[in-house]
Amino acid sequence: MRTQVAIIGAGPAGLTLGRLLEGAGIDAVIIERRSADYVLGRIRAGVLEQSSAELLREIGVGERMDCEGIIHEGCELSFDGDMLRIDFADLIDRTVMVYGQTEVTRDLMDARTKSGAKIVYEAENVEISDFSGKNSVVTYQKNGETFRLAADFIAGCDGFHGVSRASVPADAIKTFERIYPFGWLGVLVDQPPVAEELIYAHHHRGFALCSMRSQTRSRYYVQVNADEKVEDWSDDRFWDELRARLNPDVAEALKTGIPIEKSIAPLRSFVAEPLRFGSLFLTGDAAHIVPPTGAKGLNMAIHDVKVLAEALIEHYDEKSSAGIDTYSARVLENTWRTERFSWWMTTLLHTFPESGDFGRRIQRADFDYLVASRIARQSLAENYTGFEKP
Amino acid sequence: MRTQVAIIGAGPAGLTLGRLLEGAGIDAVIIERRSADYVLGRIRAGVLEQSSAELLREIGVGERMDCEGIIHEGCELSFDGDMLRIDFADLIDRTVMVYGQTEVTRDLMDARTKSGAKIVYEAENVEISDFSGKNSVVTYQKNGETFRLAADFIAGCDGFHGVSRASVPADAIKTFERIYPFGWLGVLVDQPPVAEELIYAHHHRGFALCSMRSQTRSRYYVQVNADEKVEDWSDDRFWDELRARLNPDVAEALKTGIPIEKSIAPLRSFVAEPLRFGSLFLTGDAAHIVPPTGAKGLNMAIHDVKVLAEALIEHYDEKSSAGIDTYSARVLENTWRTERFSWWMTTLLHTFPESGDFGRRIQRADFDYLVASRIARQSLAENYTGFEKP
Repeated sequence: MRTQVAIIGAGPAGLTLGRLLEGAGIDAVIIERRSADYVLGRIRAGVLEQSSAELLREIGVGERMDCEGIIHEGCELSFDGDMLRIDFADLIDRTVMVYGQTEVTRDLMDARTKSGAKIVYEAENVEISDFSGKNSVVTYQKNGETFRLAADFIAGCDGFHGVSRASVPADAIKTFERIYPFGWLGVLVDQPPVAEELIYAHHHRGFALCSMRSQTRSRYYVQVNADEKVEDWSDDRFWDELRARLNPDVAEALKTGIPIEKSIAPLRSFVAEPLRFGSLFLTGDAAHIVPPTGAKGLNMAIHDVKVLAEALIEHYDEKSSAGIDTYSARVLENTWRTERFSWWMTTLLHTFPESGDFGRRIQRADFDYLVASRIARQSLAENYTGFEKP
Repeated sequence: MRTQVAIIGAGPAGLTLGRLLEGAGIDAVIIERRSADYVLGRIRAGVLEQSSAELLREIGVGERMDCEGIIHEGCELSFDGDMLRIDFADLIDRTVMVYGQTEVTRDLMDARTKSGAKIVYEAENVEISDFSGKNSVVTYQKNGETFRLAADFIAGCDGFHGVSRASVPADAIKTFERIYPFGWLGVLVDQPPVAEELIYAHHHRGFALCSMRSQTRSRYYVQVNADEKVEDWSDDRFWDELRARLNPDVAEALKTGIPIEKSIAPLRSFVAEPLRFGSLFLTGDAAHIVPPTGAKGLNMAIHDVKVLAEALIEHYDEKSSAGIDTYSARVLENTWRTERFSWWMTTLLHTFPESGDFGRRIQRADFDYLVASRIARQSLAENYTGFEKP
């Protein structure tokens, strides 16, 4: 079997790339080691930058998003109970769209099913090889049979633990990492969200986030130590801890319930360089990880595959390698800008054992600067809604 | 002897306060443990925020500053040789004034000499007491004789190591501190500055600063380890190290010479809370220290004594304690905002042994964000030129 672009991974990065290539008449096959249901079962972010939402519309998968998604014109920060609204619409004339990653993935899968473009689920022992030249090969097993897919290019869209980055020789790649000394304990509950907008809360007991997936489904998080276990967090303990970290009026309005999901996720900043190795390109979580503060992971993935699709279209339509040659640099520019913002927002809002009294006051001063300065709020807003080059 | 306000310290804070009170007809005595020449011999900062320069004009000591000072409409950042101009005038419609602290002090001393307002130099064993109530007393010795000065209020303008803060009972004061693991090796040289504006340089070898006192006198700094000794830095070694940290074109234009002063200063962030204890008020370096990155120390001191003078004038003219009661909170608001900025600029521009590869890339990303975003540059400019509440 031969294709132009072999896409490893059927998460939002791989599916969006597939859709973009399909629209340009470029043949692509998506290889996913899990089932469609498994992919859809992963609970992930739920905030789309305006440009991400626009891209989804452009590739024809925006209809349900525009129906069920919720446009947010701002978000709230809370610092030891003091509230500050960041008014994106006023500050920077942009908005974000609250629409779960699971829904985005489902819409992309449905579109691919409808178009009949090739996608292989439950592909076992996926391996990629010969990507230094032009004869890249993907091999995998399915139902006991071994398949061999030759491709002009391989798009590594298979996440942090995927085979794509792992296949690059260690001496060809440099990685940058910060592991935070805490995680997020998250709860999904079928209750209306406590507020119309997201609330990012710093509290001396730790960070908390009030988020949502829809008008009837809420997502709440509290910062926990890295070594905590989800079994140690009864529902009551979770709700009590969340309430303790919020402004009292917010805490009182909180509608609790029996969680339909409860899990702990670690926080990590990670970047690999470069992002192109011959005909292999890394995108999304395969290339970089951000802590979830600021909701950037999905948006970075969409940004990456947009750049990659443009590069591949240039290659096939204009016989130009300009886009391919600059892919790594272009994506890394956006990556580091976004890593910086996610790191800054994480640093502002969490408690760190090592920061000491002076460091804690600097966090407060950072919040107070946001309160005092429209320019400071504009800076947060231009990054949160998705930095756009002037 | 009795006065309304006893001012401890004849640095720019004490002298500016004295001048402000003089203008309002409030009697004050300045007590300084050093000689006037010693005070003038201290080499300090040289950048005045626009509002600081305006205050000096208002109190009648702006004439020589407006003659000899240099108005800067911007400054340059350099990151591993890449240059970025921060255009204050365009970004925020403000400027700064380059005029040495020594010159400010001299102008204030001259004005006080001319007016005949009381100032005592070389006062030994200065002690303050009974400041919890209304019968504060300052005692000191001079020429073997002991003097006793009763006052309504005491203004502690005597710096980080002064007697004022040290006289506050330990359980009444809380301090916040960060000591940086490096210092600044500074050189004063009678050569024209290498550039028209200041250059703040981050380099992987360490921070460097190209500054000036006048069109013919330059001030240069390089970051050195905290344990370095000035004897280990020959003139040649200093100039070579400075050049290595600058953009090559800047390095080539550098005019070196035999330094007229060479010294190492540690970097510290420090804040005391509160800043009022009965009739004692702490101002300037007695209240807080910032690292010199961003040139905020003198400007904070001028801000503090402006707030204090207003409070004292309110007390005497309007019999209102409102200003006195809010002094600490008002000054601390400005203090923490400025501490945050000085800490941020220090963190951006210096090398830290503990930051690691990820941290170094975040520094670069911070610089690149400034390059990419006008809002980011506006934020730097509004803080550098002196944040003004809207």
